[in-house]
Amino acid sequence: MPLAIDYADIEAAAHRLHGVAHRTPTFTSRTADDRTGAHLYFKCENLQRMGAFKFRGAYNALAQFSPAQRKKGAIAFSSGNHAQAIALAARLLGMPAAIVMPQDAPSMKIEATKGYGAEVILYDRYSQDREALGRQLAAERGMTLIPPYDHPHVMAGQGTAAKELIEQARALDPAHGALDVLVVCVGGGGLISGCAVAAKHLLPHCKVIGVEPEAGNDVQQSLRKGEIVHIDVPQTIADGAQTQHAGQLTFPVIRALVDDVVTVSDAQLVRTMRFFAERMKLVVEPTGCLAAAAVLEGVLGVRGKRVGVIVSGGNVDLRRYAELLLEGAQP
Amino acid sequence: MPLAIDYADIEAAAHRLHGVAHRTPTFTSRTADDRTGAHLYFKCENLQRMGAFKFRGAYNALAQFSPAQRKKGAIAFSSGNHAQAIALAARLLGMPAAIVMPQDAPSMKIEATKGYGAEVILYDRYSQDREALGRQLAAERGMTLIPPYDHPHVMAGQGTAAKELIEQARALDPAHGALDVLVVCVGGGGLISGCAVAAKHLLPHCKVIGVEPEAGNDVQQSLRKGEIVHIDVPQTIADGAQTQHAGQLTFPVIRALVDDVVTVSDAQLVRTMRFFAERMKLVVEPTGCLAAAAVLEGVLGVRGKRVGVIVSGGNVDLRRYAELLLEGAQP
Repeated sequence: MPLAIDYADIEAAAHRLHGVAHRTPTFTSRTADDRTGAHLYFKCENLQRMGAFKFRGAYNALAQFSPAQRKKGAIAFSSGNHAQAIALAARLLGMPAAIVMPQDAPSMKIEATKGYGAEVILYDRYSQDREALGRQLAAERGMTLIPPYDHPHVMAGQGTAAKELIEQARALDPAHGALDVLVVCVGGGGLISGCAVAAKHLLPHCKVIGVEPEAGNDVQQSLRKGEIVHIDVPQTIADGAQTQHAGQLTFPVIRALVDDVVTVSDAQLVRTMRFFAERMKLVVEPTGCLAAAAVLEGVLGVRGKRVGVIVSGGNVDLRRYAELLLEGAQP
Repeated sequence: MPLAIDYADIEAAAHRLHGVAHRTPTFTSRTADDRTGAHLYFKCENLQRMGAFKFRGAYNALAQFSPAQRKKGAIAFSSGNHAQAIALAARLLGMPAAIVMPQDAPSMKIEATKGYGAEVILYDRYSQDREALGRQLAAERGMTLIPPYDHPHVMAGQGTAAKELIEQARALDPAHGALDVLVVCVGGGGLISGCAVAAKHLLPHCKVIGVEPEAGNDVQQSLRKGEIVHIDVPQTIADGAQTQHAGQLTFPVIRALVDDVVTVSDAQLVRTMRFFAERMKLVVEPTGCLAAAAVLEGVLGVRGKRVGVIVSGGNVDLRRYAELLLEGAQP
């Protein structure tokens, strides 16, 4: 069976996103290079619109709605970055959006999603099935449900982050050619599947490495077993990677194109979060630290290599963020 | 008497800094624009090498040393960003550097300065006169003393930040022409004097506004009185603006070219620091928030204007930073 997307889908997504999504900067850090003995290129999707790469996939999906779909709008179930991404994309495209969120979601996230003009529909996560509710609402209202990762348009949109990173790393250092390794966080696999398609097309020799939280290594297990493994909701501060299984569309791409998946601990994520704040002056959410932690903490050996690192997002409650910075500061 | 620098000095500095200093990004923020009714362009010198604009002036000064001066090296007295700027610039130019710091300076700053390869000379700030000690050491060792702001090469180097910002704002939005206002923090006046020379040359109609902490408004007072006013060490979290008076070289430039100086409170700085973290995913030190606070907190009316805002630095002890974020989070 062919994979859900190919490079032409990513190129088409890049055209749709041009002038709409930020072409986020790719930063280097002398300190990070000294520590790892490598050349690191950090693609800063924490500086993307609404604070995460998720905007790319959401906009790429909604921009392809038919006129009839646009009239009814988009629906999503998410308490995370996907919610804000769908809300913002819908507003920019002038269509309605409804986001189904647990009623105990942080009020800040509910307000942020409403701030983008979406209708927020709350449910009780202990008594109601989120996915069933989403499907029911979609059917009743005629809205199109956009899942957070298992959708070809979402996957293709996310892949534009790797396309840009590869172009930017080349522009920063034309003499030394191409990336040897691309490191990407893994939740449901939307980002890494799109990025792997882009990287293997543009740089066939580039290794693509996924990074999961130690407590939530379902994709690592799935690759070893050769089929999608389901796990309990993982206990980790990387809330964007608390997925229980990869997608039906993302997993075949990961299996075909991703070279390995490694894991990092929450303590390594906190140290990496501190590194970003202290040395690079960037606010990065725990999930956004996954790829960088694997490199900076020595989980992945990269000495002498040119390494692209995707920093996936920066949306973290400020109080929680400050507490994590202080916790990491304990001797 | 002619001013200490003119635009040709800034152009020459820009050539020296090309490929050495980062051409830091200029970011926009929909939220900030909505809040102010203006178009804001944030020049992110917190992303400059060593974390602040100070690198520009230090490198521009040291790069002009004679061979004899290079052999003996540079000396500076500073416990702040100027120390790290001189240390890094000296390392890049292959010359020795000595930094005179109070013995009770944060160990992190002492270590950071040593990390750039500089010799750190500690003094007792209660029993020793820092400037006298610096001059004595400079004479004994034949090192060249570079003051933090009152030096034409330092001032010209800092002015390159405004030159880049004006170019970047134009590139981001070619249709709407030039900046109407440039807002810059004021300590000893090195940054604003260089920036004012650049702005008034490139955009004669652009207003240049300085921002001081409420507790340390010596330059505002000096402008009103028409002469340099000396004040006690101001009590403010903006530690980079705790200067007691403007410089003999910077003040005449400020008097000639700066349109006004306004002040902001520490509480306004903390709210702005939170805004940068939450909405723009940037770590900005309190002093670096001065210019933005004047705009975002409504001290300066900018509705309908295109406004350049210099974000001067991001070097803040992480524990202190986290505590300020939490403090600002109190209801």
